[in-house]
Amino acid sequence: MTNEQRREPEALGPFRERMRTIKQYEELLGVVYWDMRTGAPRKGIEQRSEAVGALSSELFRIASSEEMGELLQKLEEPDTYAELGEIDRRLVEETRKEYDRNRKIPPQLHREYVVLTSQAESAWELAKANDDFPGFSSYLERIVGYNRQFIELWGAKGTPYDTLLDLFEPGMSTAELDRLFGELKSRLVPLAEAIARDGDRPDTTFLQGTFDVAAQKKFSLYILGQMGYDFEAGRLDESVHPFATGLSPGDVRITTRYLPHDLTSALFGTIHEGGHALYEQNIGAELAGTPLCAGTSMGIHESQSRLWENMVGRGRAFWNRYFPELGKTFPGRLDGVTAEAFYRGINVVEPSLIRIEADELTYNLHIMIRYEIERMLFNEALPVRDLPEVWNAKYREALGVTPANNAEGVLQDVHWSGGSFGYFPSYSLGNMYAAQMMNTAKTKLPKLEEQIEAGDLLPLKQWLTEEVYRFGKLLQPSEIIERVSGEALQSRYLADYLEGKYREIYRLK
Amino acid sequence: MTNEQRREPEALGPFRERMRTIKQYEELLGVVYWDMRTGAPRKGIEQRSEAVGALSSELFRIASSEEMGELLQKLEEPDTYAELGEIDRRLVEETRKEYDRNRKIPPQLHREYVVLTSQAESAWELAKANDDFPGFSSYLERIVGYNRQFIELWGAKGTPYDTLLDLFEPGMSTAELDRLFGELKSRLVPLAEAIARDGDRPDTTFLQGTFDVAAQKKFSLYILGQMGYDFEAGRLDESVHPFATGLSPGDVRITTRYLPHDLTSALFGTIHEGGHALYEQNIGAELAGTPLCAGTSMGIHESQSRLWENMVGRGRAFWNRYFPELGKTFPGRLDGVTAEAFYRGINVVEPSLIRIEADELTYNLHIMIRYEIERMLFNEALPVRDLPEVWNAKYREALGVTPANNAEGVLQDVHWSGGSFGYFPSYSLGNMYAAQMMNTAKTKLPKLEEQIEAGDLLPLKQWLTEEVYRFGKLLQPSEIIERVSGEALQSRYLADYLEGKYREIYRLK
Repeated sequence: MTNEQRREPEALGPFRERMRTIKQYEELLGVVYWDMRTGAPRKGIEQRSEAVGALSSELFRIASSEEMGELLQKLEEPDTYAELGEIDRRLVEETRKEYDRNRKIPPQLHREYVVLTSQAESAWELAKANDDFPGFSSYLERIVGYNRQFIELWGAKGTPYDTLLDLFEPGMSTAELDRLFGELKSRLVPLAEAIARDGDRPDTTFLQGTFDVAAQKKFSLYILGQMGYDFEAGRLDESVHPFATGLSPGDVRITTRYLPHDLTSALFGTIHEGGHALYEQNIGAELAGTPLCAGTSMGIHESQSRLWENMVGRGRAFWNRYFPELGKTFPGRLDGVTAEAFYRGINVVEPSLIRIEADELTYNLHIMIRYEIERMLFNEALPVRDLPEVWNAKYREALGVTPANNAEGVLQDVHWSGGSFGYFPSYSLGNMYAAQMMNTAKTKLPKLEEQIEAGDLLPLKQWLTEEVYRFGKLLQPSEIIERVSGEALQSRYLADYLEGKYREIYRLK
Repeated sequence: MTNEQRREPEALGPFRERMRTIKQYEELLGVVYWDMRTGAPRKGIEQRSEAVGALSSELFRIASSEEMGELLQKLEEPDTYAELGEIDRRLVEETRKEYDRNRKIPPQLHREYVVLTSQAESAWELAKANDDFPGFSSYLERIVGYNRQFIELWGAKGTPYDTLLDLFEPGMSTAELDRLFGELKSRLVPLAEAIARDGDRPDTTFLQGTFDVAAQKKFSLYILGQMGYDFEAGRLDESVHPFATGLSPGDVRITTRYLPHDLTSALFGTIHEGGHALYEQNIGAELAGTPLCAGTSMGIHESQSRLWENMVGRGRAFWNRYFPELGKTFPGRLDGVTAEAFYRGINVVEPSLIRIEADELTYNLHIMIRYEIERMLFNEALPVRDLPEVWNAKYREALGVTPANNAEGVLQDVHWSGGSFGYFPSYSLGNMYAAQMMNTAKTKLPKLEEQIEAGDLLPLKQWLTEEVYRFGKLLQPSEIIERVSGEALQSRYLADYLEGKYREIYRLK
């Protein structure tokens, strides 16, 4: 008798090879998308969009081919599946979900859609620059139309909009969001009202005027370094709408936007994208080159950008440490301002028109407006042409402000130009995940505040790597939050955190 | 009876679709290569290279597939071929050539060769750094060996070296090059000797010292704009080795390298790459998205970089117009220098060891040396171990200089480590094409000198677009030069031009 070698299931090799190819093509497309958003010449965009469409189609073809279906079927046979390791099992599960989703969309429809959304982003940029909603709405109508078709082809889960939610936050539903957002609203609206009525508004005059753009850039780079962002595995560029893109753990790029009259925009934008980047740079090496080498959901991804931007970057401990550095970076510019005054000033609460410039508290109201509009578009057949009117009415109602034009209203965000419906809720989900994670972090890292105050941000980064980052897509969002905190996602940690922070800043009884 | 529509050959649709896909994948790979050379993070390079390899393999698979062979065969049937338009015919011809070339190399041999050349580049870098020819020669021997095998598999045209020449300059032969280079040498060597012996050497002291890099960049951008380079269809970046890359006519990017101690390096480098870019930006719209949308040969491409760099950019008329601008760009730096002195200073002739630093005249002698050595390697079985000796002897003979070591001798260029034999002649072919084209241009545009002197470079660009650029690969190099000048390529236009220019600058009788 000889030692019998355990043989790998026959379908595993070809399956893994396809996984690798898919990830490789996604990486190449990622570089091209990054390029299109950071400085690709205007006149090349149309042809580039078609090339992107062609490779995306090939990717789609591989992921939804008969052969892929056969490989999945073989690997899902109980005896075979039982032999698979954890990573291969998750790959099979994820690929099956994607496969079923893809097989229901005719390739021609998919191809048209990719070309359309790729062109629509440029159209949106132009429309926003010229306050020209009609210039963009014909694209948007077609994009919504395609999505309605996709929902029908996929089969609605619960409500049609649930099907879109599941694309970004697996397992999330309209019913669940109604509950979480309902609870949150019932605590945040009174809080915002109390602030407006009785709050002691922090001084913000020192944030007015100009801040040298070169110095802003220098400070952004400095803070990224402090967070543990690896510049040999990434770079910081500029774009109209800041973003992070993880091409591989060795190449995670972020962008920001420097405004001469606004110190905080680039500063907190950079920390925000830096949080996304820390996640992608620190996914476990065993997942490299597979489709599991990515954030597990938009909500968990956003939890990391918001944890770093708001809970760390807009915290008192952080500015006790970094305010002197900031002062040195803008000589003479912040003389006479204390770290405490700066901390209060950057946490001013103010109903505003632009989501990405909103404060940490009212931001959630911006999200709820978009959530409600998207729900209306897909569950109640709201026509695209009515969007400006609906948008403006909701802003008046929830925030008491009215956009002067569509550029600062319905055209402000890029998301819909890419067909990302169901994505916006991720931002507030991220806030809730982040607050719940930080609640645990304070128990697990009892010296966290002191560490931040000493400029030692790496223990937190290391803890998050251990608890969240390294798993990539290996764990589902619900598994991540339960693993970290011992319970499912709750709204109360965010509400508690915001109440504690803002009652203190605004000196409410 | 109904009007009968002329039906397209059945194979034409699928053939064109494959052509489009090939071009699209090449475009995407082009963006990724550009990115790798201009700033991609170091830690992502290894995985990126594998992704590039994956898509390149897919491209190769499409181009050399059985289906491609069948489509070509169908389209080449005389009745079918007769029905094809000019563009489709050229596409069939070009694709057939590429297809046969690919199919004749066994895949295993191709793989071995790719591995060898990628190792050889590192070996060359090391050997050059350590002046260690034996450390590189074993690689070079094998690379030459593979190329000899490829020539046999492809079938030698005329002489074995002709087969390699055809890769870069379709239709060019060793016999033709012997004639052209022989004629050229018989006039340029005496000219260089006369300059060294009797010439009045221009003053170049004002080119010493430092030139502000930001100002260099500003002036480079200014001159590109003057040349008619379209910044909405391109961009200027920095890289260690300057290059131009045409991704599509709407996106032709160039790079340069700014040296604080060398004004002319970035300046003429930019104009050189700008010449390549003008070609690619102005290929006719009817060729867009096909493999014919590219320069027709290395020689014709190089003719455009050299025409703009040397015949325009190192011309007296050009600096009569732009020297005052240059002076303003570097305040105080060029005070007391006249346009005429500047013109003479940037045209100094000096026998040297390093090709890429050579002047416009002796550059051709560097090329002839490499040509003669390559011819000996493939047509006369020159052993690789004899290269240093042959190299040094030829430098002594043609340029009167002797390399102190192999690092500044036979090891100076990267080309052979990548197996690019037959490429070097393109550089001098480019000079000859350019001189012949300019000779015609002066007849067709009788006010050319005055236009350049008035800063109106667009009539020349427009004429070149009409005569050269718009045709892309639709015409062969020989067709281009005959169309422009009414005759085949001649050496005398270059020799006449260089004699006229340098006898005058050096005040020779």
